[in-house]
Amino acid sequence: MTAKEKLYALEKKLTAYGHAMGILMYDGSTTAPSATAANRGETLAMLSEESYKISTSEETRAILQELSENAESLDPVTKRIVTLRLRDMEEISKIPMDEYIEYQKLINESDDVWHKAKANDDYDSFAPYIDKIVAFNKRFASYVRPDMDAYDYALDRFEKGLTRETLDKFFENLRVTLAPTVALVKSAVPVDESPLNEIMPLDVQRKFSDLLMDILLLDRSHVGIGETEHPFTTSFTRHDVRITTNYSEEHYASSMYSVIHEGGHALYEANTDVNNAYNCAGNAASMAVHESQSRFYENIIGRSIAFVKMLSPKLKALCPALEKYTDEELYRAFNASKPSLIRTEADELFYSYHIMIRYELEKRLFTGEITAKELPDEWNKMYKEYLGVIVPNNREGVLQDTHWSGGMFGYFPSYALGSAYGAQLYARMKETVDIEGDVEKGDLTNINEWLRQNIWTIGSMLEPGEIMERAFGGKFDPSYYTNYLKEKYETIYG
Amino acid sequence: MTAKEKLYALEKKLTAYGHAMGILMYDGSTTAPSATAANRGETLAMLSEESYKISTSEETRAILQELSENAESLDPVTKRIVTLRLRDMEEISKIPMDEYIEYQKLINESDDVWHKAKANDDYDSFAPYIDKIVAFNKRFASYVRPDMDAYDYALDRFEKGLTRETLDKFFENLRVTLAPTVALVKSAVPVDESPLNEIMPLDVQRKFSDLLMDILLLDRSHVGIGETEHPFTTSFTRHDVRITTNYSEEHYASSMYSVIHEGGHALYEANTDVNNAYNCAGNAASMAVHESQSRFYENIIGRSIAFVKMLSPKLKALCPALEKYTDEELYRAFNASKPSLIRTEADELFYSYHIMIRYELEKRLFTGEITAKELPDEWNKMYKEYLGVIVPNNREGVLQDTHWSGGMFGYFPSYALGSAYGAQLYARMKETVDIEGDVEKGDLTNINEWLRQNIWTIGSMLEPGEIMERAFGGKFDPSYYTNYLKEKYETIYG
Repeated sequence: MTAKEKLYALEKKLTAYGHAMGILMYDGSTTAPSATAANRGETLAMLSEESYKISTSEETRAILQELSENAESLDPVTKRIVTLRLRDMEEISKIPMDEYIEYQKLINESDDVWHKAKANDDYDSFAPYIDKIVAFNKRFASYVRPDMDAYDYALDRFEKGLTRETLDKFFENLRVTLAPTVALVKSAVPVDESPLNEIMPLDVQRKFSDLLMDILLLDRSHVGIGETEHPFTTSFTRHDVRITTNYSEEHYASSMYSVIHEGGHALYEANTDVNNAYNCAGNAASMAVHESQSRFYENIIGRSIAFVKMLSPKLKALCPALEKYTDEELYRAFNASKPSLIRTEADELFYSYHIMIRYELEKRLFTGEITAKELPDEWNKMYKEYLGVIVPNNREGVLQDTHWSGGMFGYFPSYALGSAYGAQLYARMKETVDIEGDVEKGDLTNINEWLRQNIWTIGSMLEPGEIMERAFGGKFDPSYYTNYLKEKYETIYG
Repeated sequence: MTAKEKLYALEKKLTAYGHAMGILMYDGSTTAPSATAANRGETLAMLSEESYKISTSEETRAILQELSENAESLDPVTKRIVTLRLRDMEEISKIPMDEYIEYQKLINESDDVWHKAKANDDYDSFAPYIDKIVAFNKRFASYVRPDMDAYDYALDRFEKGLTRETLDKFFENLRVTLAPTVALVKSAVPVDESPLNEIMPLDVQRKFSDLLMDILLLDRSHVGIGETEHPFTTSFTRHDVRITTNYSEEHYASSMYSVIHEGGHALYEANTDVNNAYNCAGNAASMAVHESQSRFYENIIGRSIAFVKMLSPKLKALCPALEKYTDEELYRAFNASKPSLIRTEADELFYSYHIMIRYELEKRLFTGEITAKELPDEWNKMYKEYLGVIVPNNREGVLQDTHWSGGMFGYFPSYALGSAYGAQLYARMKETVDIEGDVEKGDLTNINEWLRQNIWTIGSMLEPGEIMERAFGGKFDPSYYTNYLKEKYETIYG
């Protein structure tokens, strides 16, 4: 075998390990019996160890070095794989293997503890995991990038080049620019949310999920749906993608928007370049790019009046209790805006404030200014300060999100950044696609095709920032986002 | 690390690979999207290759040899692991790795093709796989045991020491001894099967499954239930066991007895020795021993009058349509006996005839007397001859079982042998356990405990034949089985 053939064999092997780990985790979150996490942790640790060994072996290093010495003779995909793998290897090989494996075990256990802690509103059982995970992340940062602030490194892991400096400005700008709109919404007459309170039986909601996935043009022979506590998307390869949702009879709109959100992630994953299905050049570019897709479908498309008009007759056929509402009433209810407790159910306007709170708390956990012990009080204080809401318990407070239990510190800002990316993509796409017309017809072909060409098939061939600038046709400009929000909410509440 | 420590690390690693492969296959049969099999096959092939490499590596051989040279100083478990692994290694290392991997891929693909072939009643698409799988099995047999008949080897894989000679006699004896009972049932007035035809909605059946699993005392925190075309049980380790069933509104008793049958397998798997959870000495002993457990719970317990009396009020509470039937009427319906098309739905009396047909056909496929092309005609002829039924299509004929698509030639006889084992276990257990009294009270504690001590915790510490003889307190005697069947059916139909 040539070095190039060896590289692709290696990529395929790493993809297979990723698949095995992915399905174990998916099973753990969806259907596994409750007391099986420890056993699953053992298996995940072994697979992760093997995968780690392969990524960092002398043999792999030799292959990558041989290829990188002849980089000019390589095709662009191979060249890119070598670049990405060398970068990864550089990082990962700085983390001692035993610590890496210990961390994987901790994460697996922590996820299980978090599920139970949330169910029982028992923060204390989960708290030690937060401190341990933060400590691991800080230690790993000091190994990999001793020159860098540990939290900047946490941000950089999910979005290359993202720093506290950038984010502090970004969030400050949002706060200032959106202040008048926030004030307007807070003082306005609330919209009527009755359409959200109609009961939809679970089996009808399952059919509704199928309908929504069909509208998004997800290929169901490659994209499945499961049920879990906290919705997520996982992709074993582009050929096998799973979204998940959480049903509650009393809150059909919660699952509805989860399905559209996760459906956006799934469209991206299932439409990366088929030629790179088994190598890392085909991977999605970053978390912020990912969130730009999911939040584009969830909000810009899924909460638009055009979408509501198109969906309304189908929704009413499934759930006759909704027949009494006009399209406008449904649209207003789906866009009801108010400060609230739960991030995933927040409206677009207040969403970023949930992110800012997490971002501020993560920064303080990383500096050591606070520890897990102080976290619930600090969380509750910030919810009072930023959103004016009283957190009644930790289940609906600090325990609501899965991210920290999975070690994903530095991830939350991707949601806000992704939302802002989405608004700018929308403006650019509108120049060539009749978005509203297509959505109202229920035909998302052109919209998907635009994103397929400009984002999805690029995979990791370029850095995330480059992909977005090409798609925007210019620099990232958060005013698209603030303008979009101001216009939308001032129309609804003005 | 000492050789012993290395051995246990190896066992743990192989268990982890088995877990990863098991969950991939479980997912493939239960929730995976339809077009994902090829991708899953790639991953399974990689894992299987790694597992194969570890089992047969020079390093493993050296560890096993070092330990076996000092066998007298080893504790019994370690000694047994060495024996079992050396035997396996001896076998597996005779099969060229590329053929072994090719076979794993074929099996994975074949399973997918079979699912579709069965759904579409399209035998022709599946036929080439049968010929290929038989050819592989014959070739593997010629590598591993060139001295042995290939079909005897197929039998021996699932039950050490089992041969055509033994089985020919066993089945001949069944046919002769049961002939008068079969004639009686065929000529008697059929029992009233109306209780089986009541409709039970799927969500009620799901609750019913939970009830049945509770009655069996399955620990639901370690034993899950999924839905699939063809029910099966899989165990990743004793800590994580999954059963599956198939629901149909019109045939609640079909899922009911699948759940009890698979529940018996799951009790065995979940109650092997906890100290051997991560090594092969803890594995279930053989397929016939396994089937002796599943068919014991399904038939001897689950189809007894005591079980029906205990279950009846609970069943009627779930399904009021059954209220109009007496316990005796339910009991007779659950034991309705008649020649039929589908093995898994066959009553105890005719069950063995379904097995005999498969056994005869497998023998002929292995000698080359017939090929996949002739199989449906031969199948249909034998169903006419042995059971007197006309097979209307291949879906309800030759395509009904999953076994051949999974390469499990030589497995079917385990069911008949297991049933016979079960009857002898029942006779022996009765000497110390008030089986009927306990079942009527709905308390299976003593029954489970007897099997736990005599079968489950022994795992693979002894050969299957030895385990059964110890549990029986003597030699295997199929007359327990024929007597049990004669008495039961002559009472119902006499």
